Parts: sequence; C-alpha cells; structure tokens
Amino acid sequence: MTDQPVTAAPSRRGRPGYDRQGLLDVAVATFIERGYDATSIATLADRLGLSKSAIYHHFPSKERILGAALDEALDALEAALPPAAPTEDGPAANHPAAHRPAARTDDDGALPGRGSSRRLEQVLREAVHVLVDRLPYVTLLLRVRGNTDTERAALARRRAFDRQVTALIESAQHSGELRTDLDPRVAERLIFGMINSIVEWYRPGGRESAHSLADDVVALALTGLRAP
Amino acid sequence: MTDQPVTAAPSRRGRPGYDRQGLLDVAVATFIERGYDATSIATLADRLGLSKSAIYHHFPSKERILGAALDEALDALEAALPPAAPTEDGPAANHPAAHRPAARTDDDGALPGRGSSRRLEQVLREAVHVLVDRLPYVTLLLRVRGNTDTERAALARRRAFDRQVTALIESAQHSGELRTDLDPRVAERLIFGMINSIVEWYRPGGRESAHSLADDVVALALTGLRAP
Repeated sequence: MTDQPVTAAPSRRGRPGYDRQGLLDVAVATFIERGYDATSIATLADRLGLSKSAIYHHFPSKERILGAALDEALDALEAALPPAAPTEDGPAANHPAAHRPAARTDDDGALPGRGSSRRLEQVLREAVHVLVDRLPYVTLLLRVRGNTDTERAALARRRAFDRQVTALIESAQHSGELRTDLDPRVAERLIFGMINSIVEWYRPGGRESAHSLADDVVALALTGLRAP
Repeated sequence: MTDQPVTAAPSRRGRPGYDRQGLLDVAVATFIERGYDATSIATLADRLGLSKSAIYHHFPSKERILGAALDEALDALEAALPPAAPTEDGPAANHPAAHRPAARTDDDGALPGRGSSRRLEQVLREAVHVLVDRLPYVTLLLRVRGNTDTERAALARRRAFDRQVTALIESAQHSGELRTDLDPRVAERLIFGMINSIVEWYRPGGRESAHSLADDVVALALTGLRAP
C-alpha cells in the first residue's frame, strides 16, 4: 500500500545512502523517540551518519522535515475520503446524489450499507489501513499540538478532514441510513478516537492484520458489539 | 460524583490553605502542563505559594504525589467494575451466575441488555463519568509510559482493569449477548480507545454533558451508528 523505499532500513555496509523518503523515515522515528523540540538537525545528521549539509540538500530546515512528514500522513488520510467529498466551499456532502457510487469494493462481505453510509464505511476502513501502513507518520500527526505554523497548518487540515467525515455522517443520517440520536460531531470524534487509539498498541507483524482490524473497526462503529 | 474539596480552587485572600487534595489538584495540573520530569518540588512550591517543607508535610517525594494522583484515577475506574468482578486469582467473570444483578439502574431507558452485557454497559457508562469527573487525573494516567516504579505499578493496575473488562466481554460472548466475531481483547482496546480519546477534546461546561456523552459511548459501542 505504501511507496516507502527499502532504503528506510539501510544496510550496514559503509555509509548508507538515504533518499528523501529514507531520511524522512529516520527523522520521524527520531521525532517520536526524542520529541520534535529535542531533536536538532545535528541529532538527525548523527543518527543518519550524514553531514548536516547532506540533510539540507533535501530539506531547508527541521520544520520543513516535520511539514513533509505531516503532509505524508495527511495526504494519505485525505485520499481515503470519497472522490466527490465536499470541499471548503461546496455543499456536496449534503447532496448524496452528487456522489458517484463508491468505486472501491471490498472482497470481504462488506455491510449492506449504501450511499453515504457506504462511503463512511470506506473512509473508516481506509483510515485504519493508512494508520497501519504509515504508523510512525500518523503517530507523529497525532502528537502535534500547534506550536509552529507548520503544526497549525497540519491541525487545520486534520480539522477539515474531520469536518468532511462529519458531513458524511450527517448526510447518512438525513438519508435514514444512520441513527439520528447521536450528534454527528460527537460520533465522528468518538469513532476517530477509536481509530487513532490503535497507534497506542498496534505493532506491525502482530497477530492482528490491518485487514481484520479494519473489519473490527467498521463492525464496532456501524453495528456495535451487541449480538443482532 | 466526586469528593474533591472546594479548596481545589483556592480563593485569593492571603496565602491559600491547601489540604492534601487541593495540593494534588495543583500538582496534577502542573504535571500535565509542564510534564512530570520537568516539574520539581520547587516548581510546585512556587506554583502553590508554599514552602517545599509544607509540601513534604503531605507527600514524602514527587513520585509519591504522582502515585497518589494515579491512584485516584485508578481507584475510581476500578470502582466502575461490577462488585463481583473477577480477581487476579478468581475466574468469576466466566461464571455469569456468580454475579449479583447490577445494583445500579439508569433512569434514561438503558438498552435491554442483561447479565454480562448489562454489566459491560454499566462499566462503560461509569468509565465515561470517571473520565469527565476527574479529567486531569485520567489525562495524567493516560500519559504514563512506565518510566518509574510508580508508573509501572499504575500501568499494571490499568492492564488488570482492561483484563476484567475483556473478561466481561468474553463472558457476554459466551452467553450469546454479544457478537462472537470480534476478538474480545481487540474490542476492549477499541472501546476504551474511544472512551480515553474523550480527554483530547472534552471541556467541562461544554454543550455535551457527561450523561449524554456516556449514552453516546454506550450506544456506539453496543449498537453502532447504523439505523436499526
């Protein structure tokens, strides 16, 4: 699912060659381990076995490295939204007919939802895959608190994502596919709280695959734990 | 619901008098704001307008302050478990008949679950109330990473809590009240991930009351977002 190059884990023969993505992978891991503020370009150079100028060849500043990392998580999350999702200046989400039918179909007996509910299911499923595929990038995004312009821009993009998912829930409530006794904003926060919490315990290679985890999240969020 | 004294917000006349709980409230707020490691007894003394020895009168060390704060969150969470919940050396949770009927009833048209499912609903509902009532204490608990013996002991208690909730889910799966296609450990993690995420956005006095938030969590976790 990802386009991360194998250079992310450089071999030990001689000085490893890092491309932009490999450098980013190491920077993200270091930001998570030590904290962004406590990590300097010199720290990264030391960790990478590169000169500072070699890093500056790829990124003009530490904040631009952070920005690129947050963009990677946000780009992937936004790609999970339906193609005709509402934009900042468009009311598309409240007009389900404006959406084309979901292009992606699942091979695992997806729930019989349709329209907005079906698109919501796709978004939740994709968001779990993004989280698992880019675990450190999403982890970093979730730690952002808005201390710099770069962080504030990332938080604004994240809020726009949340608004689009909320609009999808609202649309599915209007069409009668989802229950109407839950505030769509609260429902969105609770469901993405559930999804985001996966970064706390998920470890790649564990017994839980991204696919079954996505199934579990969709099942819980849409139909709940109670036996039918 | 809480027994927090009004001295938590001392008046401004002269030097405030702090009892143990008031001191703890300020310490928890400071740990959250600055981080536990970056907070010294001198920091707290300065913040409280007290001498260091006045603090030592209540707590022998900074780590014991942390311990008391984490105990407060954990005591409240554990009190949310059913009275006859399984203990470390007992299999009670797998014998639903060993439980007495839930003593607490809700006045808000609770779901028609019974037995283990009903007890699970009570735990989720109570856990949301604990989180809202003791927001800073639960926030601090969720930030613990196990750097000291005190933190490791808190994490062990939290894991024991999670195991008891997992056993409750498992028991309700055995009795046919909950669906069996979800791993009870994964379901517990996802549901408490959802509950714990509330600390990220909930603000006391906002438009969402603890009661309606608890209803929303129970509705989502047990019956999902899809219209029946």
